[in-house]
Amino acid sequence: MPAGEFDLISRYFQGPVGRSPLGVGDDCALLAPAQGMQLAVSTDLLVEGRHFLSTVDAERLGHKALAVNLSDLAACGAAPLAFTLGLALPAVDEAWLDAFSRGLLAIAREYGCELVGGDTTRGPLTIAITVFGELPAGAALLRSGAQPGDDIWVSGTIGDARLALEVFRGTLSLPAELFDIARARMERPTPRVALGLALRGAASSAIDISDGLVGDLGHILRASGAGACIDADAAARQVIAAAHPARPAALDTAALRACALAGGDDYELLFTAPPSARKTIECAAHTSHTPAARIGRIEAAPGLRIVDAHGAPVEGNFGGFDHFG
Amino acid sequence: MPAGEFDLISRYFQGPVGRSPLGVGDDCALLAPAQGMQLAVSTDLLVEGRHFLSTVDAERLGHKALAVNLSDLAACGAAPLAFTLGLALPAVDEAWLDAFSRGLLAIAREYGCELVGGDTTRGPLTIAITVFGELPAGAALLRSGAQPGDDIWVSGTIGDARLALEVFRGTLSLPAELFDIARARMERPTPRVALGLALRGAASSAIDISDGLVGDLGHILRASGAGACIDADAAARQVIAAAHPARPAALDTAALRACALAGGDDYELLFTAPPSARKTIECAAHTSHTPAARIGRIEAAPGLRIVDAHGAPVEGNFGGFDHFG
Repeated sequence: MPAGEFDLISRYFQGPVGRSPLGVGDDCALLAPAQGMQLAVSTDLLVEGRHFLSTVDAERLGHKALAVNLSDLAACGAAPLAFTLGLALPAVDEAWLDAFSRGLLAIAREYGCELVGGDTTRGPLTIAITVFGELPAGAALLRSGAQPGDDIWVSGTIGDARLALEVFRGTLSLPAELFDIARARMERPTPRVALGLALRGAASSAIDISDGLVGDLGHILRASGAGACIDADAAARQVIAAAHPARPAALDTAALRACALAGGDDYELLFTAPPSARKTIECAAHTSHTPAARIGRIEAAPGLRIVDAHGAPVEGNFGGFDHFG
Repeated sequence: MPAGEFDLISRYFQGPVGRSPLGVGDDCALLAPAQGMQLAVSTDLLVEGRHFLSTVDAERLGHKALAVNLSDLAACGAAPLAFTLGLALPAVDEAWLDAFSRGLLAIAREYGCELVGGDTTRGPLTIAITVFGELPAGAALLRSGAQPGDDIWVSGTIGDARLALEVFRGTLSLPAELFDIARARMERPTPRVALGLALRGAASSAIDISDGLVGDLGHILRASGAGACIDADAAARQVIAAAHPARPAALDTAALRACALAGGDDYELLFTAPPSARKTIECAAHTSHTPAARIGRIEAAPGLRIVDAHGAPVEGNFGGFDHFG
């Protein structure tokens, strides 16, 4: 007998419910934000062939599906609270569901983000997650707060997920030890939730890098009405592969810059803060166990200038990829 | 130049923002429920070929996509607040987007439910909506409150959407005047939000009918640990086609009962209330301009008995359809 939609949710996804007065299984879930708190909401739609390959391990996919949404909360400085899951599946594959739900619920537990509602249906493999976070009124990190003179920071490492994608596409070959690192960055991104919380009141703007550093910085610049100058070599140093002894010759300076600036799928935080806050940012990075590096500066003049370590202009189109590009 | 994902949201879906401190366009939307209010959350995933036909008018699809989510809020007695939209499209079709967004935003305005976030991507046509409503703590209508002796009520009309579906499937032929009515019920369902609000404190349980009356009543019975007896003829009288002068011979008593009990896609409220509350329910129906009819009673003994107007058992499998059936 085929499993019904309610069976699927309750069999694979129902867990203990804490913050939500009513969990999975009624027409609506109920959420009660603490007094004075606002709710941050973000939604992502992941489609097979577009956002992930059909070959991806289901457990890792479960992890990534929630990770990319938690990353949006991190970029707002919100603490994870709950999420809903919409899942279209071509068929009920119990092994797949078992692995997917394991990965999904593991990261949900890790970040204290509970599943409160869901809808499953037959259809092309699609994952729709809406995530809810909590933050004090007025505390959200927005894209619109960058000021001329602010430093531009990036968390963690960038560009490696793109290397793995290029290996899958057959355009690049990597030694196994480097490919494993890149693949883990692509398939198991780490949402920078703790850093996002630590940046409240310190960063002037923030976004998470999903489409590529330059493309996502463009959203900050448009929202803030400002321009910027980026040091392509400082950004390239944040690619793990850059300093790896097994780095192949094909990964030259130009390739590393491109990966760092337009790689995408990084789920790191790109944020700005005044130079006077450098020590504060360093402490936020330290206490949240998340490296952060300065890679540029906000400018009053509109537009984005990309320079090398010596300040000379770097040519290239680093606009990132667009899901409708 | 193809439209990017952010362009799509801002070009077609961005409207004035009222209750949400921050609308579409940042990593997260921010929602601030009024003090003492809980947030009701529901999510639905609509897939072409499964939940709607490729021939459906895009404006009507926009209406229905939000209507089915508002119906979940209605079933909880929650007042609509906001929603997020995830949209996968095979290609950027401007005429389609224009019509879809027109239908979607029209019903959003009608019910005071604003779009606060979105994600668009290329992929098989899929609509993922998460809707948020507001209600006082403890006021939610749940599935679990039905008590033996309670009346079972149904709002509006049921079964006609299924008639339209059967016409599209080629298993039924209807005169144009009747088909138009049935098709409007299928393609432009009316979420019973006002009735849901009016039933707070009066109904003992509620659900919206999406998979069919019997199937959805089953959710109330399981959640409430009770059984029920339904009058199939009282239910069949709620099919518009039942009393229509153009009703064809194929729509006999058995067919009308089946449509009423297992039709699905009705988005009417099925709810229970003690007989002592009949006048209250009638007033709630009157003030919300929504008809409601009594069609059965909750029983202590588990299981569902279906009888005719004379109390004789009615045979048949009215379990409704399941999206994984």
